Amino acid sequence: MTQEHQDSTSPLRLKLRTIIFGTDTPAGRAFDIALIVCIILSVALVFLDTVQPVHRQYGQIILGFEWFFTIVFTIEYGVRLYSSANPLKYAYSFYGLVDLLSVLPSYLALFVPGANLTLVIRVLRLFRIFRVLKLLRYLSEGNMLLRAMMQSSRKVFIFFFSVSLIIMVLSAVMYVVEGPANGFSSIPKSVYWTIVTITTVGYGDITPKTPLGQAIAAFTMLLGYSIIAIPTGILTAEIGQEIGRVRDLRRCANCLKTGHDHYANYCSHCGSELEASTVVKKDSRE
Amino acid sequence: MTQEHQDSTSPLRLKLRTIIFGTDTPAGRAFDIALIVCIILSVALVFLDTVQPVHRQYGQIILGFEWFFTIVFTIEYGVRLYSSANPLKYAYSFYGLVDLLSVLPSYLALFVPGANLTLVIRVLRLFRIFRVLKLLRYLSEGNMLLRAMMQSSRKVFIFFFSVSLIIMVLSAVMYVVEGPANGFSSIPKSVYWTIVTITTVGYGDITPKTPLGQAIAAFTMLLGYSIIAIPTGILTAEIGQEIGRVRDLRRCANCLKTGHDHYANYCSHCGSELEASTVVKKDSRE
Amino acid sequence: MTQEHQDSTSPLRLKLRTIIFGTDTPAGRAFDIALIVCIILSVALVFLDTVQPVHRQYGQIILGFEWFFTIVFTIEYGVRLYSSANPLKYAYSFYGLVDLLSVLPSYLALFVPGANLTLVIRVLRLFRIFRVLKLLRYLSEGNMLLRAMMQSSRKVFIFFFSVSLIIMVLSAVMYVVEGPANGFSSIPKSVYWTIVTITTVGYGDITPKTPLGQAIAAFTMLLGYSIIAIPTGILTAEIGQEIGRVRDLRRCANCLKTGHDHYANYCSHCGSELEASTVVKKDSRE
Amino acid sequence: MTQEHQDSTSPLRLKLRTIIFGTDTPAGRAFDIALIVCIILSVALVFLDTVQPVHRQYGQIILGFEWFFTIVFTIEYGVRLYSSANPLKYAYSFYGLVDLLSVLPSYLALFVPGANLTLVIRVLRLFRIFRVLKLLRYLSEGNMLLRAMMQSSRKVFIFFFSVSLIIMVLSAVMYVVEGPANGFSSIPKSVYWTIVTITTVGYGDITPKTPLGQAIAAFTMLLGYSIIAIPTGILTAEIGQEIGRVRDLRRCANCLKTGHDHYANYCSHCGSELEASTVVKKDSRE
Repeated sequence: MTQEHQDSTSPLRLKLRTIIFGTDTPAGRAFDIALIVCIILSVALVFLDTVQPVHRQYGQIILGFEWFFTIVFTIEYGVRLYSSANPLKYAYSFYGLVDLLSVLPSYLALFVPGANLTLVIRVLRLFRIFRVLKLLRYLSEGNMLLRAMMQSSRKVFIFFFSVSLIIMVLSAVMYVVEGPANGFSSIPKSVYWTIVTITTVGYGDITPKTPLGQAIAAFTMLLGYSIIAIPTGILTAEIGQEIGRVRDLRRCANCLKTGHDHYANYCSHCGSELEASTVVKKDSRE
Repeated sequence: MTQEHQDSTSPLRLKLRTIIFGTDTPAGRAFDIALIVCIILSVALVFLDTVQPVHRQYGQIILGFEWFFTIVFTIEYGVRLYSSANPLKYAYSFYGLVDLLSVLPSYLALFVPGANLTLVIRVLRLFRIFRVLKLLRYLSEGNMLLRAMMQSSRKVFIFFFSVSLIIMVLSAVMYVVEGPANGFSSIPKSVYWTIVTITTVGYGDITPKTPLGQAIAAFTMLLGYSIIAIPTGILTAEIGQEIGRVRDLRRCANCLKTGHDHYANYCSHCGSELEASTVVKKDSRE
Repeated sequence: MTQEHQDSTSPLRLKLRTIIFGTDTPAGRAFDIALIVCIILSVALVFLDTVQPVHRQYGQIILGFEWFFTIVFTIEYGVRLYSSANPLKYAYSFYGLVDLLSVLPSYLALFVPGANLTLVIRVLRLFRIFRVLKLLRYLSEGNMLLRAMMQSSRKVFIFFFSVSLIIMVLSAVMYVVEGPANGFSSIPKSVYWTIVTITTVGYGDITPKTPLGQAIAAFTMLLGYSIIAIPTGILTAEIGQEIGRVRDLRRCANCLKTGHDHYANYCSHCGSELEASTVVKKDSRE
Repeated sequence: MTQEHQDSTSPLRLKLRTIIFGTDTPAGRAFDIALIVCIILSVALVFLDTVQPVHRQYGQIILGFEWFFTIVFTIEYGVRLYSSANPLKYAYSFYGLVDLLSVLPSYLALFVPGANLTLVIRVLRLFRIFRVLKLLRYLSEGNMLLRAMMQSSRKVFIFFFSVSLIIMVLSAVMYVVEGPANGFSSIPKSVYWTIVTITTVGYGDITPKTPLGQAIAAFTMLLGYSIIAIPTGILTAEIGQEIGRVRDLRRCANCLKTGHDHYANYCSHCGSELEASTVVKKDSRE
């Protein structure tokens, strides 16, 4: 493609790239915020339009706004393709596909008149909301949380694996004890009941009727009530470690002491200013 | 206004100010406690009066008490205005408006006879309960909790932002899967169902009927059951830090050692008495 | 009373006292365990007798067993009075009253034939279960938990005080928004609904019907879902502190080092045996 | 038995033993994974077969697959018996009995034609799922979690003991207050309601109708909502301790420093590689 060869020549493309893909300049940030407002408004419209009275009264206005947002997002998609250093790579990236998927449905709906299909297609537009996830990248706290969750993911996986075993055994037992007459019409339905019970949601659409079933249900509830402590314990310990680690990694450039909170701006020992994100590796100290 | 000029001349106003606005003297504390008892009693009366059998039998007595409290609060409002160093500033302050709003409804109800409107107006009187919040200021533990919550507020915000994205996507999917026939009559209603499920409340007024919907519901429950651990983990870590920080900040005036619990009265190293709230800044140690 | 003067003369009373009130001798422990088995069995009988089919078929047998336990507990009460160093003090103590209250109902039921009254009286017998609480005294872990709960009680009180304010305001708002037509027949009932929702219990006997009510309900759930983290955070931090404190208080008699886990039997530094509950006060170190 | 005497002579049996019972060789691991896939598939078949539409359409195919898995598991059981160093010990071990119990039902079903009985027998096959528990042994994180749970088991037991006392008293009170007319037909049923409420499950199949009952229910919910913090606090503190202990126990072979995370591969002080599971006992340091 010739676009890639001209990469360093067009100042317009370079400027657009800084605004659209970058987040460091004031213009780049303003663009991101405007985009997110548009996304939230367009998603809110799709949500509101499914309410029947709203649809009857304001359906035409909402349709107008939807086309407005569709055109805005189409232009944005085009500009992204044009200004990207590697348009193909962008088109096949996660955010590139999300951008396309959120624009296509409106055009498809022109040719496919089926009501139900249109709905599914319009809901597809909601995927654009994942764009908002990019926001999280700005926030160092998000990274700390993510790191703590990564760190605890193996332990949490073992927890959920053990819970699934318990759920399967309890479901089979409840199916035999209560049976189809009391709403436990199959083991998969019994699994649904066990999850409703063990997570303490408790809809009440299926409830045990026999004394033995109620006793097992009571046991299931107490189990769910107490094992909820395990993921909390794992994650809390990891977040505590993560906060401690961040404290250890920030070093004052003046007195070389560590142990500063991640939100501290000045060294608590000598008062000199701390760098914003001094992440000193432990093994580089000596 | 001439009141402000006479500020230092009227001993009555000074004394009233100490009692009404101050909390350090025995009289000031007694006044606060009497006021809070009045507020709780007047709120309890509004609550009880909405119970039909109580209203029929004791409606007149309750009305009498309500007027009694209205007059008490009106006098209090007047005295506050009179004794305040800056009456206008008080009148426009949060507590000043709360005080006015809790008195006005009763007088308005004399002229507005509509039953429903009266109710809304009378409920307005409940805002006075926010006055009780002033109590929290006495308590150092409240400050510690508040500080821990402030400290974790950004992380908790990111958490709720991510949860909202998940809720929106799950709501749209459930609306398409279950549809209006099974109670998911619109996406906003589907959002309501998702929040009922993900928070493990589980009313059971709307429940999934299709196998696929029940599978997604089960996933939603397990998700809600496990992500409840995240805010707990964040807050626990912050409260732990906060307790540790308080320990570090209390220094013995005799042996200069730190690390005392916030409830300790004597230094654990040399036995000399500790000051009640010695908050030594770390950077002043050296 | 002459009983008190003969206190040092009757070896039978001394021996009985060691067995009944003491927990250090094998006989004393065996007596306690036998007593607790009797209490649990007699409570189980009262529970089972309320099940109609069981009552019809085994009512007479259960009545027989109930009289057997009543006589056993009456004898026990008499022996306690006889062997106690201070019978009057025992009779007016918490456990003395519990013992009397759990025996009296059966005798009263002989003279009071009313069916409903009998039930209330028989349930009174359940108070005897509080005797089992004495068991907790054996367990050092129970003390540690209790200490952590005491330590956090002020913070938890502030938490529940703030939650009550929120519950009251939300209840009043929901009463105005939903009204008696949707089941919110009075503010006290609305308070019940708010508590059912904020604690994530979610019976579903009262549910919001209006869109605004459902929005406020969703907010209430998310609030309850997130503030559940606060007491957990407080208690976790305190239990962590408590475990750390116990480690600090155990000192090796040989090398004088501290930092041992409360379940450690040998010093981890020099290998000499640790005393079972060496609680060394910090200020006695120097 | 002669089998045990020939133990060191048959190379086939030795090789089979390494594959079937061992987990260190690639063949041993591949066998374990293949076995677990078979178990999960056979369990999924039993689950699916209880869904009526699936049973009607694919019942014959599922039956075929079930016999296939039965034969596979029978062969596996035979080979285990043959290759085991001590066949009798294996046959009476937990996993030996699980293996037998999961194979027997299919053969028994040939001779026992009763539909309901067959179901119970087929569900027995699910016990084989416990075999999957062996997987957990590979995972060091599982051991850490288990150790933390063991460590906190006494405290958690005391917690559940106290909760049972509260549940029993509340159940008896609610039975007297609400009575059989409002669904509290017996104290055991009232216990079921109390557990449903205190664990915040809240089915709504039994709900209090009287104002006093609703007040006690509200108290029960708030109690359950707050005491859920206790096991979380206990477990979190223990997991934190356990992570700290693992850090203390890993010692660098080069610079002899401890304090490494359990997932660290290199010493953070001198950079030399750490052993995978250097568990240095504290008392062997000196």
